[in-house]
Amino acid sequence: MDKLVRINMTTRKVEVEPLPDKYKGKGGRWLSSMMVNDEVPADCHPLGPNNKLVFAPGILSSTRAPNSGRISVGGKSPLTGGIKEANAGTPFSQSLARMGIAALVVEGLPEDNKSWMVKVGVDGGEVVPADDLDGVGAYESGHKLWEKFGEKTPFVVNGPAGEAKMVMAGLAFNDPEGRAARYAGRGGLGAVMGSKGLKAICLDDSDARGIEPADAELLKTGQKKLADAILEHDVTKKGGALNSFGTAVLINILNEAGGLPTNNFRTGVFEGAQKISGEALAEAAKSRGGAGTMGHRCHPGCIISCSTVYPHEDGSEHVSSVEYESIWSLGANCGIDNLDHVAELVWQCNDLGLDTIEAGVTIGVAMEAGLLEFGDGEGAIKLMDEIRNRTPLGHILGQGAQFTGDAYGVTRIPCVKRQGMPAYEPRAVKGIGVTYATSTMGADHTAGYTVAPEIMSVGGTSDPLSKKDKIGLSKAFQDTTAFLDAAGYCIFIAFPILDIESGFEGVIETVNGMLGTDYKADDVTRIGDEVLRIERDFNFRAGIGKEQDRMPEFMKYEKLPPHNNVWDIPDEELDTFWD
Amino acid sequence: MDKLVRINMTTRKVEVEPLPDKYKGKGGRWLSSMMVNDEVPADCHPLGPNNKLVFAPGILSSTRAPNSGRISVGGKSPLTGGIKEANAGTPFSQSLARMGIAALVVEGLPEDNKSWMVKVGVDGGEVVPADDLDGVGAYESGHKLWEKFGEKTPFVVNGPAGEAKMVMAGLAFNDPEGRAARYAGRGGLGAVMGSKGLKAICLDDSDARGIEPADAELLKTGQKKLADAILEHDVTKKGGALNSFGTAVLINILNEAGGLPTNNFRTGVFEGAQKISGEALAEAAKSRGGAGTMGHRCHPGCIISCSTVYPHEDGSEHVSSVEYESIWSLGANCGIDNLDHVAELVWQCNDLGLDTIEAGVTIGVAMEAGLLEFGDGEGAIKLMDEIRNRTPLGHILGQGAQFTGDAYGVTRIPCVKRQGMPAYEPRAVKGIGVTYATSTMGADHTAGYTVAPEIMSVGGTSDPLSKKDKIGLSKAFQDTTAFLDAAGYCIFIAFPILDIESGFEGVIETVNGMLGTDYKADDVTRIGDEVLRIERDFNFRAGIGKEQDRMPEFMKYEKLPPHNNVWDIPDEELDTFWD
Repeated sequence: MDKLVRINMTTRKVEVEPLPDKYKGKGGRWLSSMMVNDEVPADCHPLGPNNKLVFAPGILSSTRAPNSGRISVGGKSPLTGGIKEANAGTPFSQSLARMGIAALVVEGLPEDNKSWMVKVGVDGGEVVPADDLDGVGAYESGHKLWEKFGEKTPFVVNGPAGEAKMVMAGLAFNDPEGRAARYAGRGGLGAVMGSKGLKAICLDDSDARGIEPADAELLKTGQKKLADAILEHDVTKKGGALNSFGTAVLINILNEAGGLPTNNFRTGVFEGAQKISGEALAEAAKSRGGAGTMGHRCHPGCIISCSTVYPHEDGSEHVSSVEYESIWSLGANCGIDNLDHVAELVWQCNDLGLDTIEAGVTIGVAMEAGLLEFGDGEGAIKLMDEIRNRTPLGHILGQGAQFTGDAYGVTRIPCVKRQGMPAYEPRAVKGIGVTYATSTMGADHTAGYTVAPEIMSVGGTSDPLSKKDKIGLSKAFQDTTAFLDAAGYCIFIAFPILDIESGFEGVIETVNGMLGTDYKADDVTRIGDEVLRIERDFNFRAGIGKEQDRMPEFMKYEKLPPHNNVWDIPDEELDTFWD
Repeated sequence: MDKLVRINMTTRKVEVEPLPDKYKGKGGRWLSSMMVNDEVPADCHPLGPNNKLVFAPGILSSTRAPNSGRISVGGKSPLTGGIKEANAGTPFSQSLARMGIAALVVEGLPEDNKSWMVKVGVDGGEVVPADDLDGVGAYESGHKLWEKFGEKTPFVVNGPAGEAKMVMAGLAFNDPEGRAARYAGRGGLGAVMGSKGLKAICLDDSDARGIEPADAELLKTGQKKLADAILEHDVTKKGGALNSFGTAVLINILNEAGGLPTNNFRTGVFEGAQKISGEALAEAAKSRGGAGTMGHRCHPGCIISCSTVYPHEDGSEHVSSVEYESIWSLGANCGIDNLDHVAELVWQCNDLGLDTIEAGVTIGVAMEAGLLEFGDGEGAIKLMDEIRNRTPLGHILGQGAQFTGDAYGVTRIPCVKRQGMPAYEPRAVKGIGVTYATSTMGADHTAGYTVAPEIMSVGGTSDPLSKKDKIGLSKAFQDTTAFLDAAGYCIFIAFPILDIESGFEGVIETVNGMLGTDYKADDVTRIGDEVLRIERDFNFRAGIGKEQDRMPEFMKYEKLPPHNNVWDIPDEELDTFWD
């Protein structure tokens, strides 16, 4: 990967540049965060002419290293006002890497209000009208792109919400079967792409040369070590937890731990949990038959296969994938215990181009504001029409949970840095609360998944209700995660590599094999820390300092059933995170 | 003034306390900002249980010092997220001072959703139901209070927008004739009062002891010096600019300077300026006769009398007062050149309890977003119904200009620290731009009115288009203003005291006469600086640092006709403001 491709939406020119030396050997989040920090003025308006979108495949994308097909998308977030990296697993990442493109950079704003798309090949590309896709749902857009450019064409597409510059909008990449359903969801990067009038990017990788590892043997050794670890660990092996029940296996687990946020973070247990659990999901996939699938994968080379296809009652496909976070946000968090309603909400989110986490947190806040009752699945589905029709209410909801709460004077808004909290109650799982508070991304579980030791006894154990040693725990997880996000690895390889030493060695060997570097174990956290500090530097310059590393005030005085805990890690202790 | 009265909305108790020593000799903004900084956690939710509202009359309130009847209202702003002081001229301030009450402090939240009001007397008070005022417009609420408690009863009342916790809401104090029309308008303090379920506060000053100046002779000497200066200066004398044409005298002046923001800050000249000018206002008051009045006053003791009563065509009263800022925001800024439409918009704002500046900036942004055409006065009036009816669109607009722009992905949003800019284009009047950027309050012209030397040749002259020496100019004005806000003086005494030395001496002598202090000229800026730094300390702790002392990005790259200037004072120079 020795090229940069710049897409200028003002001039509608696509230009190929050699990758500057400083960016060589970087990839994924490492590269996207460096470039955003270097090229985007931290104080720019996220939807103005000076923001950029950076698409960077991970270092290992398109290698045979297992579960390495993730792409990072970077920019200034219109949701948080800070830097954003959102990543997705998709064949798009692997194609980009094979084409030798370390990053696609989208710049400028068009002077008209039209829809455009970009076709990118090995030697350049062109910006062409996309009038036929203007306002079209993400799913249909994806189908049209495959009809037009051929099956397997890698694409990223913006849904109608992103086109309307709603900051709840993510970006949809294709899955192996062409569904526009693999989301770089968080932080509103769809709104940034919408501001640039860019509906889609398609790749033509027919002339791709492929990758050239510096040490193919070492890469292969590492691949095998990591694959063996993945296939050995209970969480990630074939027939293991993720493969059998999808990520939704966590519904029952978190509910039992009292950490499943319910009814807009009012309690940590949901009466209807069983009905929306991974077990219920697997049962539906089995009993309804037809399209229903557990063990689906988001990109070739994934050997965990935690994705799913959820069927309608008649067995026809309803939606892929139904993830833990989505079931929680659109289910338990809204008091909704009907899996068909949840699946329809996920489909609507995917088609509109919405981050399912932010959408569910937003609906929960809307329920809090009295717009509808907790548990009203059909009412929640109707709210999606408000977004689709761009009504005033749609424009409120489309801007996310903090915005919706602010519109109605709600004080119980579960956000950090304006980003909605994911599926783990920080009062009941305190380490993840530290991650929410301190992450450069706003509330984000993937930034440092301390849930592993706190709930799943992976990578040791840590009492979720205790505030002891949670700062260091979160920092270690955040550092390691930033490294994995740079490598392009799926975060779920963390389970095996935390428990199986050779798997961790495999990760380092694959990176060294690809790059010709000599990274040791310590470099993983060193590089991760470096990435985090680049992001923090951007945030500081954007006006997001330690005063924004805070939990919502209500969590400090409202006790969460069933443990009746408050958030009690002092702010001063949070501030030691960066020491 | 040796008492504090605390109104606790959780317990519904009213308690009188002796004024702590540290607050003695303080008043107005000095006292409100000190108390907010001391008692309100900077990181609290502005509408949650931990915010407070502080009502503090100026040091000289109820003395015979001219134009000293202003009250400061402080709290954490739900609009800016920082500290807020908004002040108004009203008999309420004078009564509070006569009652010996240095501050009313409203604390806590009720556990129900009912409307409450408070009656405060010399020795205490009580919280009583206000069901009959629930959702009632500010004007009618005021009338009902006078019917119930007698004419001349001093009151402050919250409009329906504040009750709905819309952060565009200010607080309406009574004028001498009982209109709920003297606004502490900016920063959303109406939403704070709404969050506390408090519809109104009424004073019973029948047992008031009056004030006891430390040196009555010195006070009298100062009074006379200041009064003489006011009555001598062209801007403030009887038959002078303000008295004859109201504050709206500025419409033509700013328009000619190319600094009258028009059509959401697109240009600095408005074709229809003449039709909404102070001259047109005076002509309507004269030709329509009846209630039409120039030279009205907001509180007894005012000798400038710049307030107005605008009549309907038939001579009946339409609205009081129609100010420059309101005519600009709801007129030129929205491209509306019909004074009757503007007057109706002002009436609507007053009745709903909206800050007219924020309302006009918001409508301008709504026009920018395409919700209606620039110039559509009738459409703008209809938007007020959306707020009154609490529709989703009303909930968007009610949260102000930044919020409205964000809802629709607009990038041309003229706000600093989320507060809408007032009536002076910072690209054409650069000193006031420095005030907007650096004020602890968000964009606020009253914080440091450099327009005096830049446009009116008062207090010297300074080229409005030049960026030279504007930091120091703004700092000097902001310091002095903070002192005047502490004293309870109307900001318009700045005109005479800038040009007439004895007037300035009069200000210091009145304060010394009242307090028994020995303040010199240097103490004015020293104390002002002290107040600003208290406020900045709060803002820092609330997460508002120098990165928020910034002009909107679009002003840095969009040239403003007719001078075709951009905002070009570098951020680094703005940061020297506090050195």
